[in-house]
Amino acid sequence: MAGKKLSTDPYKGVRDFYPADMAIQRYLFDIWSDTAELFGYERYDASVLEPADLYRAKTSEEIVNDQTYTFTDRGGREVTLRPEMTPSVARMVAARRRELSFPVRWYSIPNLFRYERTQRGRLREHWQLNCDLFGSSEIAADIEIVALAHQTLMNFGADPSMFEIRINDRAWLNEELAAQGLSGEQTVGMLALLDRKEKIDDFDAQAERLIGKPFVMPEAPGGDSDLGRIIAGLKALGVENVVFSPSTVRGFLYYTGTIFEIFDTDPENRRSIAGGGRYDRLVEQIGGEPMPAAGFAMGDVTLRDFLESHGLITADITAPELIVIPAEPALNIEGEKIAEPFRAAGIATAVDFSDKKLGKKLATAGEALVEYALVFGEDELGSGAFTVKGLQTGETFSGTLEALAARLMADGR
Amino acid sequence: MAGKKLSTDPYKGVRDFYPADMAIQRYLFDIWSDTAELFGYERYDASVLEPADLYRAKTSEEIVNDQTYTFTDRGGREVTLRPEMTPSVARMVAARRRELSFPVRWYSIPNLFRYERTQRGRLREHWQLNCDLFGSSEIAADIEIVALAHQTLMNFGADPSMFEIRINDRAWLNEELAAQGLSGEQTVGMLALLDRKEKIDDFDAQAERLIGKPFVMPEAPGGDSDLGRIIAGLKALGVENVVFSPSTVRGFLYYTGTIFEIFDTDPENRRSIAGGGRYDRLVEQIGGEPMPAAGFAMGDVTLRDFLESHGLITADITAPELIVIPAEPALNIEGEKIAEPFRAAGIATAVDFSDKKLGKKLATAGEALVEYALVFGEDELGSGAFTVKGLQTGETFSGTLEALAARLMADGR
Repeated sequence: MAGKKLSTDPYKGVRDFYPADMAIQRYLFDIWSDTAELFGYERYDASVLEPADLYRAKTSEEIVNDQTYTFTDRGGREVTLRPEMTPSVARMVAARRRELSFPVRWYSIPNLFRYERTQRGRLREHWQLNCDLFGSSEIAADIEIVALAHQTLMNFGADPSMFEIRINDRAWLNEELAAQGLSGEQTVGMLALLDRKEKIDDFDAQAERLIGKPFVMPEAPGGDSDLGRIIAGLKALGVENVVFSPSTVRGFLYYTGTIFEIFDTDPENRRSIAGGGRYDRLVEQIGGEPMPAAGFAMGDVTLRDFLESHGLITADITAPELIVIPAEPALNIEGEKIAEPFRAAGIATAVDFSDKKLGKKLATAGEALVEYALVFGEDELGSGAFTVKGLQTGETFSGTLEALAARLMADGR
Repeated sequence: MAGKKLSTDPYKGVRDFYPADMAIQRYLFDIWSDTAELFGYERYDASVLEPADLYRAKTSEEIVNDQTYTFTDRGGREVTLRPEMTPSVARMVAARRRELSFPVRWYSIPNLFRYERTQRGRLREHWQLNCDLFGSSEIAADIEIVALAHQTLMNFGADPSMFEIRINDRAWLNEELAAQGLSGEQTVGMLALLDRKEKIDDFDAQAERLIGKPFVMPEAPGGDSDLGRIIAGLKALGVENVVFSPSTVRGFLYYTGTIFEIFDTDPENRRSIAGGGRYDRLVEQIGGEPMPAAGFAMGDVTLRDFLESHGLITADITAPELIVIPAEPALNIEGEKIAEPFRAAGIATAVDFSDKKLGKKLATAGEALVEYALVFGEDELGSGAFTVKGLQTGETFSGTLEALAARLMADGR
């Protein structure tokens, strides 16, 4: 076998997470879960494998066939790597709708797959925070979902001037389009056109070609409409950076009411950071019984771009706190024994098994931002007195292992 | 669409994690990551999608074809849902072998897929703790890996009498078999037979049929052999429940030295909880350059069985700490506003939007083990004085929202 060299690249369009990348990923996930839990959301999960039919129920066949990983297993079952989480959570809620106490607030941090052509750095796998509230038709539910998305960004240290929440109402928009005399087919075309409005130069001309007359962009609905009350409610909660946006549509077919999307205000980074809305029919489609629902999702890749462009991410340290360095390899096992009281005190401790020279060992540990080093040989083992050196500070302290462990524990990190 | 009801079941052989299941899963993952980090291991991850060739390099074609999910993507690439993590981490280490500072200690908690026939509750997806130490040939590395697996179980509250660590040395065993005159083919057959020894009645007869003469079970290697020193080193670290086991083989082809497996001592639950060993050739097969390595894996399903059978798992509470109950739905948005100071103080707070009666709301929250309730109406909003009730204790305290948030924060959970 040796000599037959394989590629060390990951599969095309997915990422390896080395410890430094993983530390950032965990930072994102920790703020996501902390924020969702502060709003009373409980964490759930499901498998990345789902029956392909789950996506056929609410999206076009085209999406299942062309943009997802769908294959047939040996039992003849068609299975899809989930491209989004909402159908999975709707399925889970539908399965237990008789036992659950509504409203249900759930969140998850799934990885999702899309068969992208991988142009312009688009990835085939990404992670998302998904928060959903089932069983309430109250506008307070719509407000809470938007406020939770807003608070999530605030908890990363964002300032409201850094992002904008564009909000619309799919039901109201449909009525507005019907009032302008658009047929069902023209409405579908117009929604798709509105969705691309910012990316095209000749929106007005295309819209006129589609409906055979000039299109009048609907004005903001009144203050007593659902959307008007939702915007007012958000402002009452201190969410000031929310704006009515008649061209916010979102591609998903299942939205029935409020729809919103959050954009970076930095003109260099125009991708959507998060989005969501109300989808009152999806659970019914899967489970057969009506269930109002609202939710949002926020992706790791676009969030990380947002945080990086605003200087809101600092790399986390992943090195252990203490490195135990035996004076010779024959003392490696003694090194593990010395590590025990430190580990018992909650101090992340590694033993250096390498055959580097002592100076090199200390330098490597210092560069990796290890906090302390404990070098020992037969002398220290004989006397029971050890010395710990602060690699970043240069200070040293001596004592028994138990005293040193207590000292380091008190120092914290 | 309505009326066309879909199945709400997950894909065959995978699990949905409702909040109560997810709480247990997170408990397992938290102890896993805490323990690995105490030993100085850094967390990494990779995608579940890997090039199929990665598994062909070290296992038989049969395994790739019959026991994995392998499919061809639209670009003609053969892709496999990872059935184990070791090839992925070996690939990642091989890719950066020039930049990394060895020894490298890494851990991960991946989900893995196997195409099982799903008999007897066998699952197609499970999670595993994977800990690996790259770049050290020292027996201290073998010892550390076994000690880390041992400590992981101890950190779940296990007693050493509850599990047994069976250890062997693949290189030594091969020499012993060669010394008995076994051919290469007979050795492969004998390893497979040893692996099944506990499951068959007529091991001696089958062994004799295989090699044409009586098989002599090798006796424990001497105290100055690698395995003898590893067992002695483990005992010096307080790992007493380690036993030499000549029939411990493990199926993976890539092990080159130490191999171990941890079994529940409860005769009702004989499945392996964890296992691992030394695999000094795998990174070379992938990356073209030699790299000693040792590691182990522990699965969530067998661990949970072990913990449950020994009474070591208690379900975690996933409900919020405080439920804010508006006296009427028109006050729902005020409820969100009232929740803010509590959330800012780190108290998980949900607003009850349901149209149940007040008594029912309080009873439901109490059953879900919510700690506190705050019921409010126009009176409280006018006066600014609110009352929080302890749902489990019955005690009440009143004050401004800020004072109540401070009080609940001080109480902790």
